[in-house]
Amino acid sequence: MRPVLALIGMACCAQVPYDRIRQADAEPGNWLTYSRTYSGQRHSPLKQITAANVHRLKPVWMYQVNDLAQFETTPLVVDGIMFISEPPSNVTALETRSGRPLWAYRRSLPPDPRVCCGQVNRGLTMLGDRLFVGTVDAHLLALDSKTGRVIWDMEVADYRSGHSVTVAPLAVKDKVIVGIAGGEYGIRGFIDAYDAKTGRRVWRFWTVPGPGEPGHETWAGDSWKTGSAATWVTGTYDPELNLVYWGTGNPGPDYNGDVRQGDNLYSCSLVALDAETGKLKWHFQFTPHDTHDWDSNHVPVLIDGAGGRKLVIVANRNSFYYVLDRATGKFVRGVPYARQTWAKGLDDNGRPMVLPNTEPTLQGTLVYPGLHGGTNWYSPAYSPDTRLFYVAVREEGTVYHVATPQYRPGRYFAGGGPRGIPGVEPGGSVKALRVETGETAWEFPLHSPPWAGLLSTAGGLVYGGTNEGIFFALDASSGKPLWRFPTGGPVLANPMSYTSEGKQYVAVAAGHALFAFAVD
Amino acid sequence: MRPVLALIGMACCAQVPYDRIRQADAEPGNWLTYSRTYSGQRHSPLKQITAANVHRLKPVWMYQVNDLAQFETTPLVVDGIMFISEPPSNVTALETRSGRPLWAYRRSLPPDPRVCCGQVNRGLTMLGDRLFVGTVDAHLLALDSKTGRVIWDMEVADYRSGHSVTVAPLAVKDKVIVGIAGGEYGIRGFIDAYDAKTGRRVWRFWTVPGPGEPGHETWAGDSWKTGSAATWVTGTYDPELNLVYWGTGNPGPDYNGDVRQGDNLYSCSLVALDAETGKLKWHFQFTPHDTHDWDSNHVPVLIDGAGGRKLVIVANRNSFYYVLDRATGKFVRGVPYARQTWAKGLDDNGRPMVLPNTEPTLQGTLVYPGLHGGTNWYSPAYSPDTRLFYVAVREEGTVYHVATPQYRPGRYFAGGGPRGIPGVEPGGSVKALRVETGETAWEFPLHSPPWAGLLSTAGGLVYGGTNEGIFFALDASSGKPLWRFPTGGPVLANPMSYTSEGKQYVAVAAGHALFAFAVD
Repeated sequence: MRPVLALIGMACCAQVPYDRIRQADAEPGNWLTYSRTYSGQRHSPLKQITAANVHRLKPVWMYQVNDLAQFETTPLVVDGIMFISEPPSNVTALETRSGRPLWAYRRSLPPDPRVCCGQVNRGLTMLGDRLFVGTVDAHLLALDSKTGRVIWDMEVADYRSGHSVTVAPLAVKDKVIVGIAGGEYGIRGFIDAYDAKTGRRVWRFWTVPGPGEPGHETWAGDSWKTGSAATWVTGTYDPELNLVYWGTGNPGPDYNGDVRQGDNLYSCSLVALDAETGKLKWHFQFTPHDTHDWDSNHVPVLIDGAGGRKLVIVANRNSFYYVLDRATGKFVRGVPYARQTWAKGLDDNGRPMVLPNTEPTLQGTLVYPGLHGGTNWYSPAYSPDTRLFYVAVREEGTVYHVATPQYRPGRYFAGGGPRGIPGVEPGGSVKALRVETGETAWEFPLHSPPWAGLLSTAGGLVYGGTNEGIFFALDASSGKPLWRFPTGGPVLANPMSYTSEGKQYVAVAAGHALFAFAVD
Repeated sequence: MRPVLALIGMACCAQVPYDRIRQADAEPGNWLTYSRTYSGQRHSPLKQITAANVHRLKPVWMYQVNDLAQFETTPLVVDGIMFISEPPSNVTALETRSGRPLWAYRRSLPPDPRVCCGQVNRGLTMLGDRLFVGTVDAHLLALDSKTGRVIWDMEVADYRSGHSVTVAPLAVKDKVIVGIAGGEYGIRGFIDAYDAKTGRRVWRFWTVPGPGEPGHETWAGDSWKTGSAATWVTGTYDPELNLVYWGTGNPGPDYNGDVRQGDNLYSCSLVALDAETGKLKWHFQFTPHDTHDWDSNHVPVLIDGAGGRKLVIVANRNSFYYVLDRATGKFVRGVPYARQTWAKGLDDNGRPMVLPNTEPTLQGTLVYPGLHGGTNWYSPAYSPDTRLFYVAVREEGTVYHVATPQYRPGRYFAGGGPRGIPGVEPGGSVKALRVETGETAWEFPLHSPPWAGLLSTAGGLVYGGTNEGIFFALDASSGKPLWRFPTGGPVLANPMSYTSEGKQYVAVAAGHALFAFAVD
């Protein structure tokens, strides 16, 4: 048993060994890893805040950042201290009770990072007394969690060729696993593991196989060299199977598949890697030979199915909901959860049966979902109480155009581009899917396609946010809206929950501020 | 009587004729002009929020801005609509109940405005159905309050020579009175009045008299041409006397008085101008021949003294509190309210008796107050209930250095510079001064010298803020702290209060957000 650290003053020496993360469910008041537990369920066992009292939920403190980029962090909370990343590549420690800053790490960045979509950061991982953060200049840093001091600083890849690290890393045993962004720049994707102590790279899994490797034959000619399949959303981990689950992005170049004939493995896939070696155990490709920008950069959520069958579920950017056997990668079930016009359905192996006339063209081809998908990078949530899977759904089509891509290192690399649909306003919703079937149990409509993740709690609530700046709570069983707060800035992050001095808080980044809410 | 506009839907057509502003005290739920009334007292007659219930005060909505400059606005509230300025020179209309944006005006600015201290804006004035806002490129705009559409756009002065308009204008009768910033650039200061209907300039009062004008003799040689005396804080108005009261900034160049021998009228002064003509009725110079950057850019607060004597009171940046007869400008009383080491006191006419060895030198001269003064631009408040004058006080010395200034149009123009005092942490407080004597009734200490104004309410509360992001309420009679909220960003603005659908709100800008608080 770890000692109980009751005094804030002792929190300075918090240690998060691997065992604490593995048993994170035993610490409902902390939030030790990106999705709280290795399962990726983003479900908090806390239940002080309920449907009966959520109307009294109110902001009790805030912390504002001094950067205009999207604020996408999920905070970690360890024994009275909150650790957050801030755009572009900064880290701050805050008192959980008051929001008072304790220390700040501010990275000195080169003037020309290559990021497609904002100089952002999605969070941290902790191991022992160290925090780990990626940077938009594609480094991975270990910081002293007591002071913010840099312990080591490793280049993951050359940022000048289009690499960046925006993902929250994932600490597993003695390693820190990290993905790479840069799919829009024609990088060759990978997943890395670093020794937490020394920063030495222990393994690298190339998401685009090289010559002689299985899957290389799915890339015509030299197209693998710029095949992308980036890995910019945090994966999950099964300690019993010792497998790391991680989603991969679309193949490069986007939109134009002619220059990369083949299935383009392991793009738009879920890969299961041996945590010790990074060796591929299995893969499942959601969208072979994607031409619609349907990254599969999602948190793969680990759940127990009937009879204790180990499953992994994904609501994919391609608008299908998938249930897979996570020991084998075997397809169990797949159904659409959002509007889609590109596939007749999935075959027995889960491969999409693609409809004709859905490829990007010179004139433009209208397809649902659009380039941002039926959902996107932000986290879904799963409640073991309701056995519902909560997804923030985007209802938005895109007119896809094709063009001739030209690769130049470190420059934007695309084989076409998207347009909106004139006269059609996109929409969105929060959907609760029955986890076994993917059927919609309830739906809460949103004014515009969301960019915010969800949090489920044992208090019977689901928290989410809108582009219009509303942070809200829904009844987890019925979807009934119970509470809302106008944060004044778009919610582009995932909520989380923790306790401080025994009281439950819900925290979320919105606009340029982090909010901590509690019931008084 | 104006019609009562009870429906939000009707608020679109709100009209604020001069008579409404003049009788603003009859509309406690609105906030029609910068300091609520022409008196500049920044006292709200609202009393729903009291010492007994302020502990239940909580944020009910927020609005976040997308600019990192200081957010210094005082909102206006008219019949259910809030109008705010945002940095750098933007205007937004919000629903008072929800914070929902109704329209936004976003100014297209040149790339090179000349502002010493941030591309800021302190607020708006309204007249009829028009809003008036100044810009950092030194224009004055009239906007349609229903839509944000620009009705007219007048150049107040050439921004390339260092002018900017950051002050909230003041609507008086059919005119819009506006000051100018740019003291650090060697501008020649003025106060302007524009016809609200046409935008035509009706009068200009030069705060640095030209050849042949009274006061010109207080400037050696050609020094008047770059004499500064800027006017960047909103004045007040006495409708009976028909006088506009407006503070003026320090003479230019700063720190080095040798190049501008003389008293340098009307720098560091309060001027009383005829509202129709802009003619000087009287002036009172707080700091003749200033060399310490002690702008007198304060809201001059109009109060009734014993026997109904018309007074104007100023807690000056030079650390003295002044009571003047506002009909004549006659000095009534003056005492220090903050630490000062530069004057033995004030003589019978209120002129400071300056101590030797307080001038800036090559080696540096330590003087209290420092360059930011005993207080600064942010608003004080006065409660007719307590007869206390509330001032956010800075306790900070400066080591003043002298140098040789060189004037180049549009470039920074200073004859020296300030340094802090090694090893001495500056501090601050909120002080309640007995209005007749300037004696301190109570003092509430702050961790660092404040940059936030104060609001007094008939609920017996004084609201203020800190650099550390705490917005707080004090008991107006005792200074006892009753409530606080961590906003997460420095409070660099003045609070205000209003009602929406009958409920009292308190609003303040903090960090990059506007907060509306209420008791549920």
